[in-house]
Amino acid sequence: MKHPGSLLLAWQVKDKHCLVIGGGDVALSRVHHLIRAQAKITVVSGPNVHPEILELEEKGELYKLLKRDYEPEDLQMYESKEQLSLESFKDIDESHYAQIDDQVKNQVFACVCCCIDDPVLSGKVYYQSKYLRLPVNIADKPPMCDFYFGSMFNQDALQIMISTNGKSPRLSKMIKDDIAKQFAGIKLNDAVDTLGDIRANLRARKLQDNSLETIEKRMEWIKKLTDFFTLRQWSR
Amino acid sequence: MKHPGSLLLAWQVKDKHCLVIGGGDVALSRVHHLIRAQAKITVVSGPNVHPEILELEEKGELYKLLKRDYEPEDLQMYESKEQLSLESFKDIDESHYAQIDDQVKNQVFACVCCCIDDPVLSGKVYYQSKYLRLPVNIADKPPMCDFYFGSMFNQDALQIMISTNGKSPRLSKMIKDDIAKQFAGIKLNDAVDTLGDIRANLRARKLQDNSLETIEKRMEWIKKLTDFFTLRQWSR
Repeated sequence: MKHPGSLLLAWQVKDKHCLVIGGGDVALSRVHHLIRAQAKITVVSGPNVHPEILELEEKGELYKLLKRDYEPEDLQMYESKEQLSLESFKDIDESHYAQIDDQVKNQVFACVCCCIDDPVLSGKVYYQSKYLRLPVNIADKPPMCDFYFGSMFNQDALQIMISTNGKSPRLSKMIKDDIAKQFAGIKLNDAVDTLGDIRANLRARKLQDNSLETIEKRMEWIKKLTDFFTLRQWSR
Repeated sequence: MKHPGSLLLAWQVKDKHCLVIGGGDVALSRVHHLIRAQAKITVVSGPNVHPEILELEEKGELYKLLKRDYEPEDLQMYESKEQLSLESFKDIDESHYAQIDDQVKNQVFACVCCCIDDPVLSGKVYYQSKYLRLPVNIADKPPMCDFYFGSMFNQDALQIMISTNGKSPRLSKMIKDDIAKQFAGIKLNDAVDTLGDIRANLRARKLQDNSLETIEKRMEWIKKLTDFFTLRQWSR
């Protein structure tokens, strides 16, 4: 039997609102993750804010920083009072799409990360978020997490996440460092670009139409070609 | 500037309901991901079902297989009619926690994966899901995805996800194969267990109390020890 695990996913929070509750080290780490993912980040930090969070705010990396304690209203702070009023979700048709898009992009938190040292309040944030159906991560409370963060390796367009499902964060880190060494000096963007150019050339010169047969042939070519060289060679 | 990316997360769907709409190759791949994550999987396959999905149903790996086309009601098929009736989510207190837990675990879909060849219906599934605030992935429609799947490497307790953010799935696969080669023959569970044993021993013999100072000392020890040997050595 396969070893059980998590569902590792690439969450899409670009231009979506994300909420970080807390102003310490963990909050900072969440903010870093969210910046890379180009989210609109709101931090409700409490009165004590990590200096690096303040710096990030000054650089314009945050959407909003509130230096006060969490209030339940925060979970809906961007939601408009006028919501779609439908008898049932089954009545949704194309006339409602733009409004739902606006909710997804500009109103509803795509995720809530709570990183405060108050287990009772943390619990409240969890249950309030779940009632509102917001994905939530309560730091240090694994049963109150819809998702965990893992060790991340980022280089150019490549992202690698390493998880031991909480069994050994230290080992995750070690593996991450191993992988980092392996990719040192490799220009991944160049590899991605070179492969993209070749695909475009192939399309322009040899396999021009869009019949299913041609597409399949093109994919087969690209597959063989990609595998012929190593990653290091592609990045030259 | 750092290259933008996704928010790679380890989604926790163990014992939670997940819905797969479709019965083809992509649906099968989603089902495989969800089995490893120990989700309760419901597949609404349509009349044509991939033979491997049928096999998985026979093996008891699925929670439910419905060999008919999707109906909007499916998105709420496990939700009870009696929901918490609160004036506002701000009134939530501990007396409501058990009911919310039950909703999270037994009623609401933790994710919806739609893998059908019908763009109009796919669009409907997306907007219905977002109205209900369910995380959703519409295959082949990146703007209609709360999350993407990436190339996954799984070995023992270790999970590695590789993403090029859609730029080069082929390169992701290549990197995955590279990593797989690197871990060949390494018994990761042994490494995790050995490290766990040492930590327990250390706690029992040398650093017994739970003062902050002792915890910090213990963490420092483990850190140095872990780094002293390579992964391959730890797995012996």
